[in-house]
Amino acid sequence: MTTQEPLHTDLNRLWQSIEEINQIGATPAGGVCRLTLSDEDRRARDLFRDWCKDAGCDVRVDPIGNIFARRPGRDPARPAVMVGSHLDTQPTGGRFDGIYGVLAGLEVVRTLNDLNVETESSLDVAVWTNEEGCRFAPSMAGSGVFAGVLEFDDVMARQDRAGKTFGDELRRIGYAGEAPLGGSPIAAYFEAHIEQGPILEAENKVIGVVTGGQGKRSYEVTLIGREAHAGTTPMPARHDPLKAAARVITALEHIAQDHAPDAVTTIGMMEVQPNSRNTIPGEAFFSVDMRHPRTDTLDTMDEAFRVALDAAANANRVNPNLSLVSEYPPVDFNPDCIASVREAAAGLGLTHRDMVSGAGHDACQLAGFAPTGMIFVPCENGLSHNEAETASAADLAAGCDVLLAVVLRYALG
Amino acid sequence: MTTQEPLHTDLNRLWQSIEEINQIGATPAGGVCRLTLSDEDRRARDLFRDWCKDAGCDVRVDPIGNIFARRPGRDPARPAVMVGSHLDTQPTGGRFDGIYGVLAGLEVVRTLNDLNVETESSLDVAVWTNEEGCRFAPSMAGSGVFAGVLEFDDVMARQDRAGKTFGDELRRIGYAGEAPLGGSPIAAYFEAHIEQGPILEAENKVIGVVTGGQGKRSYEVTLIGREAHAGTTPMPARHDPLKAAARVITALEHIAQDHAPDAVTTIGMMEVQPNSRNTIPGEAFFSVDMRHPRTDTLDTMDEAFRVALDAAANANRVNPNLSLVSEYPPVDFNPDCIASVREAAAGLGLTHRDMVSGAGHDACQLAGFAPTGMIFVPCENGLSHNEAETASAADLAAGCDVLLAVVLRYALG
Repeated sequence: MTTQEPLHTDLNRLWQSIEEINQIGATPAGGVCRLTLSDEDRRARDLFRDWCKDAGCDVRVDPIGNIFARRPGRDPARPAVMVGSHLDTQPTGGRFDGIYGVLAGLEVVRTLNDLNVETESSLDVAVWTNEEGCRFAPSMAGSGVFAGVLEFDDVMARQDRAGKTFGDELRRIGYAGEAPLGGSPIAAYFEAHIEQGPILEAENKVIGVVTGGQGKRSYEVTLIGREAHAGTTPMPARHDPLKAAARVITALEHIAQDHAPDAVTTIGMMEVQPNSRNTIPGEAFFSVDMRHPRTDTLDTMDEAFRVALDAAANANRVNPNLSLVSEYPPVDFNPDCIASVREAAAGLGLTHRDMVSGAGHDACQLAGFAPTGMIFVPCENGLSHNEAETASAADLAAGCDVLLAVVLRYALG
Repeated sequence: MTTQEPLHTDLNRLWQSIEEINQIGATPAGGVCRLTLSDEDRRARDLFRDWCKDAGCDVRVDPIGNIFARRPGRDPARPAVMVGSHLDTQPTGGRFDGIYGVLAGLEVVRTLNDLNVETESSLDVAVWTNEEGCRFAPSMAGSGVFAGVLEFDDVMARQDRAGKTFGDELRRIGYAGEAPLGGSPIAAYFEAHIEQGPILEAENKVIGVVTGGQGKRSYEVTLIGREAHAGTTPMPARHDPLKAAARVITALEHIAQDHAPDAVTTIGMMEVQPNSRNTIPGEAFFSVDMRHPRTDTLDTMDEAFRVALDAAANANRVNPNLSLVSEYPPVDFNPDCIASVREAAAGLGLTHRDMVSGAGHDACQLAGFAPTGMIFVPCENGLSHNEAETASAADLAAGCDVLLAVVLRYALG
């Protein structure tokens, strides 16, 4: 078997599996709500596990809930090749973010079975726990613990906004497993994913050869003021945390503009207490997400943010509490893995370009632990974290073919 | 009986009744959460009704849930004198806002009973439904329907943020009554209340002779943008409703400053969807409360607000939906009622001053229907709509004595 005769995965089977698993947590608007460690997450995990067993895989689960489905190779002593992504979604998430990478991995296994291809190395298809990070911070938690970037105990103790802990919820859905956590070496890790941005579509390219990921810092801010009556409290006597929050949000927009075009800042969560129309809020909470491909620029943005927060808190006479929820430095992927993806795309006759990932991915956690690469395919209008997220079956199949090719490149021996 | 020998109410009994009713919905921080039409609201209503029956009153409930406890006069044909306020609270409300006016009314009844005073006119103690307006808009709803300012069907159809209707919740707690709604004339309406502001305390006065209430407009704004990924969506490609909201909130602060010192603007409610840290919000909702003693200034503020909203929506490429939830013009109370309060305070030897109410009150709704007056007493640090709200027993009793005096002035005949 050589790269002169590229193999192809089964477009229809891949598409149908995506459709089937997305019945779990399907939303009326055509998206998916499958929050990490929810009942829907459990059902999707169960279905994936069943499919993998049907495909002849050995399935193991580690203590942080990561699932690994192994298609054994001829030589158990050789480091496995690993592919994967995640099954959890945003509250109003799409049908491809994460799911695609997991089921592309399963499709590679199924194709290898169909063609009776034996590999030297074993192939692991991984499902990483809590990639999204929207219910429990931080994101990319399962892969982070696996790769030794995050502390197991810290992740297990995290609480959602309702006060439930990650550990309790993981045990509740039955996915606190006993397989060893990390440890054994991996020959290479590859993750297929929709781009979640507009670049491939705009340039009419099918494959994004991902060279790395930008850096990210995630914060939570709580501003403590004083509840008071909306009608009787003169403006100068107020301690209004929401007015302070508004100034900070506007400042964060300017901070991104000051570092255009690569910087992005996002305030995704915002809650006030007591949330009553005729009471000045006593407390305002919001999240901050700040990204840039360079660490020194992130440092500058971080400092400007802290200055703006203190200024707004002082101006509105409220007390700021700032915590850094997670921090991911910019990541460079492995040159050989990057070259493999590029060559596989070329070998399949697919248009492609190198690019940096705007989003964080489990692959970014793995990058410090194993040689890592990623394969992007376009999504319509660059839209993701949105129920309208969509991608073409042909592009998804093309990305899956590239994944198959790089798996063979590393696993055949 | 003449004003030369002023009667006194029972300070201890009044205080103990306030303490007892505030066990219902008591919060750990020393405040009260008794949202309108909640189980706690029902239990407070039941207790009030039982107390009034024990005091020999006839209790009736009208279709919007207003409770009237009548101490009959000698002449049933004469218009009744009415006193009252409300039992519902803010989510993190205090122990005196509303409750004081209701129980001061009950204390007047009990004192008249103790002294065997017969009045010509009947005396009604009213509990108005949903004064606070924080669960269901608009505020002062029961008194508004009673006074013909609000439409019964409209109020009954209002929904809380959970989608429950006012009417369903009123029926659920068993307070959709059958007494006639409004209709019969009232000789005078008086409401005792804590000031909820800092003026009486600052000037060391015991009684506020309220001459009227400032105007108020209450709005809801929903900004519709587009959910997208926080890491992959370039800033210029975003449709971020929260960043637009932040600009509007800051603009509203400037609008208040432009009309200092009397103007106040408050954003009490703020919610974003999907409220996820790594997704640009698709929707932002917030409430706006705008007050000033003059209608023409409110008109100017309203116009500046609309301009700012449109500008922010355009700048962030989101769609604004603005609705005026309620509008209360500035209110002038009845000159004779005002004079009665002033004379009663003087007759009791209490320090006093005339003042405009910064808050809306049920009395403001009644003012167009019956001769109306209000009696303010100080509250500590001017703090209200806060669990730390407090007032001195002596000041509360002083206000109650004034209430007794004005009731006698109108009811004796």
